[in-house]
Amino acid sequence: MFEVLERDGLGRIGVLETPHGRVTTPALLPVVNVNRPIIPPEQLAARFRAEILITNAYILGKGPAREAVLRKGVHALLGFPGAVMTDSGAFQTHVYGGVDVTNAEIIEFQRKIGSDLGTMLDVFSEPGHDLPQASTDVDETIRRAKEADGLRGTMALVGAVQGGLHPDLRERCAREVSALGVSVCAIGGVVPLLESYRFRDLARVIVASKRGLDPSKPVHLFGAGHPLVFPLAVLLGCDLFDSASYAKYARDGRMLFPDGTRRAADLRESGCACPVCAEHSIQELTATEELLAAHNLHVCFAAIREVRRAIARGDLWELAERRARAHPSLLDALRELRHHNEFLEEFEPVSREGAMYYVGSETAHRPILHRFRRRLIERYRPPRAAGLLVLPENGRPFSDTYGAVVERVMQAADVHAVVKSVWGPLPLELDHMWPMAQSMIPVSLEVDALEAAEVFFR
Amino acid sequence: MFEVLERDGLGRIGVLETPHGRVTTPALLPVVNVNRPIIPPEQLAARFRAEILITNAYILGKGPAREAVLRKGVHALLGFPGAVMTDSGAFQTHVYGGVDVTNAEIIEFQRKIGSDLGTMLDVFSEPGHDLPQASTDVDETIRRAKEADGLRGTMALVGAVQGGLHPDLRERCAREVSALGVSVCAIGGVVPLLESYRFRDLARVIVASKRGLDPSKPVHLFGAGHPLVFPLAVLLGCDLFDSASYAKYARDGRMLFPDGTRRAADLRESGCACPVCAEHSIQELTATEELLAAHNLHVCFAAIREVRRAIARGDLWELAERRARAHPSLLDALRELRHHNEFLEEFEPVSREGAMYYVGSETAHRPILHRFRRRLIERYRPPRAAGLLVLPENGRPFSDTYGAVVERVMQAADVHAVVKSVWGPLPLELDHMWPMAQSMIPVSLEVDALEAAEVFFR
Repeated sequence: MFEVLERDGLGRIGVLETPHGRVTTPALLPVVNVNRPIIPPEQLAARFRAEILITNAYILGKGPAREAVLRKGVHALLGFPGAVMTDSGAFQTHVYGGVDVTNAEIIEFQRKIGSDLGTMLDVFSEPGHDLPQASTDVDETIRRAKEADGLRGTMALVGAVQGGLHPDLRERCAREVSALGVSVCAIGGVVPLLESYRFRDLARVIVASKRGLDPSKPVHLFGAGHPLVFPLAVLLGCDLFDSASYAKYARDGRMLFPDGTRRAADLRESGCACPVCAEHSIQELTATEELLAAHNLHVCFAAIREVRRAIARGDLWELAERRARAHPSLLDALRELRHHNEFLEEFEPVSREGAMYYVGSETAHRPILHRFRRRLIERYRPPRAAGLLVLPENGRPFSDTYGAVVERVMQAADVHAVVKSVWGPLPLELDHMWPMAQSMIPVSLEVDALEAAEVFFR
Repeated sequence: MFEVLERDGLGRIGVLETPHGRVTTPALLPVVNVNRPIIPPEQLAARFRAEILITNAYILGKGPAREAVLRKGVHALLGFPGAVMTDSGAFQTHVYGGVDVTNAEIIEFQRKIGSDLGTMLDVFSEPGHDLPQASTDVDETIRRAKEADGLRGTMALVGAVQGGLHPDLRERCAREVSALGVSVCAIGGVVPLLESYRFRDLARVIVASKRGLDPSKPVHLFGAGHPLVFPLAVLLGCDLFDSASYAKYARDGRMLFPDGTRRAADLRESGCACPVCAEHSIQELTATEELLAAHNLHVCFAAIREVRRAIARGDLWELAERRARAHPSLLDALRELRHHNEFLEEFEPVSREGAMYYVGSETAHRPILHRFRRRLIERYRPPRAAGLLVLPENGRPFSDTYGAVVERVMQAADVHAVVKSVWGPLPLELDHMWPMAQSMIPVSLEVDALEAAEVFFR
């Protein structure tokens, strides 16, 4: 049902087969509120090329459209030709403290309305839940996942991963739920983190969940609809995102951008290339909810496609590092990743096409460079020599830059040469290994290094 | 003729009055080659909201349209309702080694065809020109600028700044040319720098030129049409940009993006939100020069508007620092700016609205922080105390975070407190001065600082 075509980091381009067509991942699922759709679902397909959307089965079942959706099915009700995923009401338990529906009831309802991907009613772990409480959340979520698996019939099931901020619980929940007959694994309980820009905690939650998840299954990150987080979340292995933000923010007069959120009324021009901003003034956008929502969707879909482009080109790490500069909290999330390098490194290819670009000091902590340094310690034995010549960062490949110097010194004395590079210590004879010679770093870093070493060259 | 409405760094939002309407700056002038326009000039106004364009008077005068343009004027020939700037052929001397027209002739021709902004025929200083050669270039450029000023009549004149990579020459040329009756000062001779990503040299050239330029006049950066450089160039005081790139790159199958250039044939999707990419597949773009050119223009105009948005919001420094992550050579240009802080600081306001965001280690070198540190040295006298308590970076404002600790220590001993912040040493009693308390920095930097100081707190 899910085929992975290409990889970069833990990110992947994949195809998810559904009864209503194939979905290319990473994918964005616009949230449709049937009671007040701001953009009609048929337009989501026609104008925005949405292949899949998500609507809330709990809200459908409690609202005026209940009879109609049971009679016609969810696709006909929405007038949407593509795949439809439904949510269960778990998020409503977070917002309202509880829902008057059972896991079994909501699974049954989703089957009846013909959902392509139906979601179990998991227990929403709040970030503040302590270990015993979160453990209870997880136990009950796993129990319900098993129940849902037994009741799903032929409907593809979305199983949820809970466990709050407790990595062991996230991993256990992920392992047990993804071992069941679920088609999609959804990481839940993260909206409170997104709302308060706790991106470092978000990264920890995703990594902990991924440790337990079956890598052959697609991963949905529930409630993450801001383009700010797409590169990092995909890099860490998320494939599906739902966005109510495009509509919610529009109702509140706010515009989404790849680098953050801005209030339309505060702007004189949007500085955005999307069709809505190309054709309308900011005054028109400010006055029209539907235009704001359409702008938000254009930006979100473009951001998802940009991530796919990066995976295909093998530069998702670069995109994620660049995007992390949009907010200090997102930079914190990036800086967190070095603590998970042993895990992240497993997903790195032996080499890549093209050069590795220095984005910032965080680049030195990429898993591929962690691997290089670790293997150096584990596998490398320096040649016997009387001395060690330490050379500063300079034009790469270093063996070309320093070849003559080293030869001269080696003639005079029995020495071995190592470069103190921005990626770490590098024995000169290994400098053609990817990505050492194939690195693009700012010249000013080389200048700094040479100046610092100047005393030795005078 | 040019009114500055808002400022940020050396960047400004302004209005340039022309006989064919007002032009909001920073502005992008699409280059129109009359002999083969890839997008008709009337569409530049209608589809892209271009208020001004540029075409080459030398090429017009030598080509098949010569008689028509002399008869009808350049606006009627192009069918463009807005302002038209014309270029002189100086760039052709760079490409072909010479042109068969004089400065006086090209000024006369531009007057006759009704150019709103006519350009003198300056001497193109190549980056490789040594000091004597570049000095000769500058002398001749100044002589011709004076000649052009005498011949321009009522036509608004564009005077050029040359001098290659020699800062003193750039400054002298800028000072002398901008003191004449020129309406726009153009920094020339930078295309070879742009073509080889020598952005650090570009920044040096702009800063050197700005030191000499009359700040009341708009500044054109000749040949800089890539969105990659707009934030930095505007931050350093450039107001007008011309782009032949949108068409040239399209003819070569290449797409412009805010973070660089990509070959359309290498992509499966563009990941761009523009109207062209929203409505067409990448296969259609790859096959159609006109679509590629339209995409490139949409991206360039959006990037210019994004810069204007940043000036209006007072966060142009942040935008420039973020964009600098797109390429190590652009990061080099950003890292160069610290060497010009004495000059850049003159343009900084006393304070700004909102917080200052940490983008990277380069943020600590912003002119506003340079000013803070310099004034601390010049004007600050610490209170008499027997000891100094040095506190690590931590939650801001520091006086709240550390208030209790400091009071306790001060009771026990006669000490003064200073925070070793990421912006530099900060006497605790000054921490409410902007932007000290109003800084948003990654929590992980605070954690690092606290861990480094742990030994003192155990």
